[in-house]
Amino acid sequence: MLGTIFLHEIAGTAILTLLGCGVVANVLLSGTNGRGSDSIVIFFGWGLAVFCAVYVAYDTGAHINPAVTIALLTSPATEYAPGIPITLATTLAYLSAEMIGAFLGAVGCFLAYKKHYDATEDASSVLATFSTGPAIASYGWNLVTEIIGTFVLIFVIIMFGHTPSGLGPLAVALLVVSIGASLGGPTGYAINPARDLGPRIAHALLPIKHKQGSNWAYAWVPIAGPLIGSVLAGLVAHVY
Amino acid sequence: MLGTIFLHEIAGTAILTLLGCGVVANVLLSGTNGRGSDSIVIFFGWGLAVFCAVYVAYDTGAHINPAVTIALLTSPATEYAPGIPITLATTLAYLSAEMIGAFLGAVGCFLAYKKHYDATEDASSVLATFSTGPAIASYGWNLVTEIIGTFVLIFVIIMFGHTPSGLGPLAVALLVVSIGASLGGPTGYAINPARDLGPRIAHALLPIKHKQGSNWAYAWVPIAGPLIGSVLAGLVAHVY
Amino acid sequence: MLGTIFLHEIAGTAILTLLGCGVVANVLLSGTNGRGSDSIVIFFGWGLAVFCAVYVAYDTGAHINPAVTIALLTSPATEYAPGIPITLATTLAYLSAEMIGAFLGAVGCFLAYKKHYDATEDASSVLATFSTGPAIASYGWNLVTEIIGTFVLIFVIIMFGHTPSGLGPLAVALLVVSIGASLGGPTGYAINPARDLGPRIAHALLPIKHKQGSNWAYAWVPIAGPLIGSVLAGLVAHVY
Amino acid sequence: MLGTIFLHEIAGTAILTLLGCGVVANVLLSGTNGRGSDSIVIFFGWGLAVFCAVYVAYDTGAHINPAVTIALLTSPATEYAPGIPITLATTLAYLSAEMIGAFLGAVGCFLAYKKHYDATEDASSVLATFSTGPAIASYGWNLVTEIIGTFVLIFVIIMFGHTPSGLGPLAVALLVVSIGASLGGPTGYAINPARDLGPRIAHALLPIKHKQGSNWAYAWVPIAGPLIGSVLAGLVAHVY
Repeated sequence: MLGTIFLHEIAGTAILTLLGCGVVANVLLSGTNGRGSDSIVIFFGWGLAVFCAVYVAYDTGAHINPAVTIALLTSPATEYAPGIPITLATTLAYLSAEMIGAFLGAVGCFLAYKKHYDATEDASSVLATFSTGPAIASYGWNLVTEIIGTFVLIFVIIMFGHTPSGLGPLAVALLVVSIGASLGGPTGYAINPARDLGPRIAHALLPIKHKQGSNWAYAWVPIAGPLIGSVLAGLVAHVY
Repeated sequence: MLGTIFLHEIAGTAILTLLGCGVVANVLLSGTNGRGSDSIVIFFGWGLAVFCAVYVAYDTGAHINPAVTIALLTSPATEYAPGIPITLATTLAYLSAEMIGAFLGAVGCFLAYKKHYDATEDASSVLATFSTGPAIASYGWNLVTEIIGTFVLIFVIIMFGHTPSGLGPLAVALLVVSIGASLGGPTGYAINPARDLGPRIAHALLPIKHKQGSNWAYAWVPIAGPLIGSVLAGLVAHVY
Repeated sequence: MLGTIFLHEIAGTAILTLLGCGVVANVLLSGTNGRGSDSIVIFFGWGLAVFCAVYVAYDTGAHINPAVTIALLTSPATEYAPGIPITLATTLAYLSAEMIGAFLGAVGCFLAYKKHYDATEDASSVLATFSTGPAIASYGWNLVTEIIGTFVLIFVIIMFGHTPSGLGPLAVALLVVSIGASLGGPTGYAINPARDLGPRIAHALLPIKHKQGSNWAYAWVPIAGPLIGSVLAGLVAHVY
Repeated sequence: MLGTIFLHEIAGTAILTLLGCGVVANVLLSGTNGRGSDSIVIFFGWGLAVFCAVYVAYDTGAHINPAVTIALLTSPATEYAPGIPITLATTLAYLSAEMIGAFLGAVGCFLAYKKHYDATEDASSVLATFSTGPAIASYGWNLVTEIIGTFVLIFVIIMFGHTPSGLGPLAVALLVVSIGASLGGPTGYAINPARDLGPRIAHALLPIKHKQGSNWAYAWVPIAGPLIGSVLAGLVAHVY
């Protein structure tokens, strides 16, 4: 079972960041076809990245986000997915697979856009294709934004499960489009610690031509915010 | 039962204005990632805000709009939702919950975009993230526009109920995208008195750095228009 | 039965042109919130106008387009919708209802955008909110474009009926988004004689401040093209 | 059976390139209504082209892409579609029908936009409405991008088949929107040898006013990349 979790959550989270970092690369890097596109491309791009990733990791509940894993861990649920109990081992399998997958997807994005990374001299654009960053740096308020965004993500996903919608992965994709458009303005909506940290590590390690620091000082915000928001959402949903 | 109505309609309407005001904040406020995005972002942002809100308030019929409550009140229907009869008490519960939720969601938007509200010096942009306003002020014609928009909203929602669509909340979301794109030009499509008045009160009360008046002279239009339009839609649908 | 056809097809086609002309008004008229939006707004606006209209006219098969009526008339089908036989009387009911509805919807759009019509001095923009026109005038090639566009519309709708899709009105809406984006460049994709002629008559009759001619010389193209395209599609689908 | 394959795959692939090349023509050619639209129009335009094409070729499994045919050929599957066995004859029928259809659709696009092709003097824009090309020419890296894009296409389509989604053609359409937005930046996402080669041949043969070479030196990349990517996806999915 741990092998299944590993395989599916790595693959799902890799598809997530491959497509998610990819859409930012298309809009921000020099010389691409999508250079300078409207932000609607980013919002649908990330939403549909989630859409695809959920299908790829369907068999293990498609966490692809430590915030989902932690929300389930701190909830009264007894399973991470049908047939997968919540134990220390499965928890660590999910969390590590999410991190590894997010890292690998960012590497894939780098390979797909290799010549455009070479051609892009603006180091902050390069970093933005990997990790999120604050539009106005203010760790406290940035944290608030990430908490609110992830609260909405997890709370509404739980609500999906309570209603006979039948939309499945499409509903989650549209929710992520919504959060991006509505709450992504201040911090670029990490709402997923692995989605941010995995590509940030890739940014630090990859041989990128024009890069500067990976902004490690900010890296704790898109980890702490999503985790706080998801635990809060789980608690509120429990008494809802 | 009143507690259930209260809880779900407050939560649903809060999600509505958190995400709805949020998308306008992302497009209009200074320094955001979405600053200056195309209006398609606004239309999908509000449509998907409704999408999420409907799931959150699913158990109480997801009114999240006094126009819906009043349309049902003046129709031959006997229930506001399965198991919730139409009485004075339930009516007041719906209406007050919608107002409180809309207010709270706008406060949430203010918190999520706090640093960007601080940075935005254009007071009319700040107000536009809370409430609607006329592109060309003309109370009579603005009222006509809101009546037409809300008529379409309520009439088509009633039609959804008459057909085996199976799309549920997604259909309502797409309807709201449609009304925004097609009828939102003159007044910013309130089509919901709570969506407009709740955030307008929040605008008046919140400690916003650069703000001017809350345009109370216009505030009756996005209340009267939607109520007239929804009652008309209910009457027409009854004989349709 | 004729009354049902009349009522539903008038209402459906009125919703179609109210929302369809409305989105063009939002993008083209002076002073609107949507002024100058990207063309994606037009494509989704018209697609979702069809989405709403199909629900409104669901009980009569949602023709809302003489091209659909004529395609069925010239096909081996025996009914226009479940329970509605193909006769001279029902044919005339559909066609006249579609024309009347399309006219009324355009009047509704004029009312919703009254102050913006007053403010718009460019007569060609005003006409464009009512009827289609060629980007490069060339009746022969414009006709070809309308034939191809309507062929795709009717042929793919027939294919929808042959497959277990379950998407219903959403599939038709997305098809219209597709035709707009892909084949709307040269003529503005009338693909529906009523959608073009009804609003053109409204344009001629309404007391619009800044208007010039209604371009009657072109008016036959968006009638003939869609009718030829739809009959062709019906024939091809029959042997497919 | 070969006749059915031929007919449906020609028709489906023709609809694909008619609508797909059409959306690029709308955005790039001189004087169109969609000229200069945001890239979101391209991404949804191609995605919805696939949407329509899948319905048209539904009965034969809607390959409309040699990469799909080859992925099935090299997989343990025994049928190309329900009732259609994998044989040399059916394989050749699929591949040739895909090529012929892709060619014919591009001719249809040329006819629909005839006056705009006449009016467009930029030969590279003209070629871009037919075939893909690299944003930064580098055959090796362009190949990598096409391999990654097609891998995602085929792998996620296989995952769709493993899950109870019920979205059918819509899921594939959204996947193509996603790949365009996220991985289309460097090479314009052929991800389909027929989609690229068929229109390239049409470009070479058609009497286009302002054209230069058809960039045959690059033509092998959007053939080899998709075939490699699809075979890899089939292998990985087999052990997944």
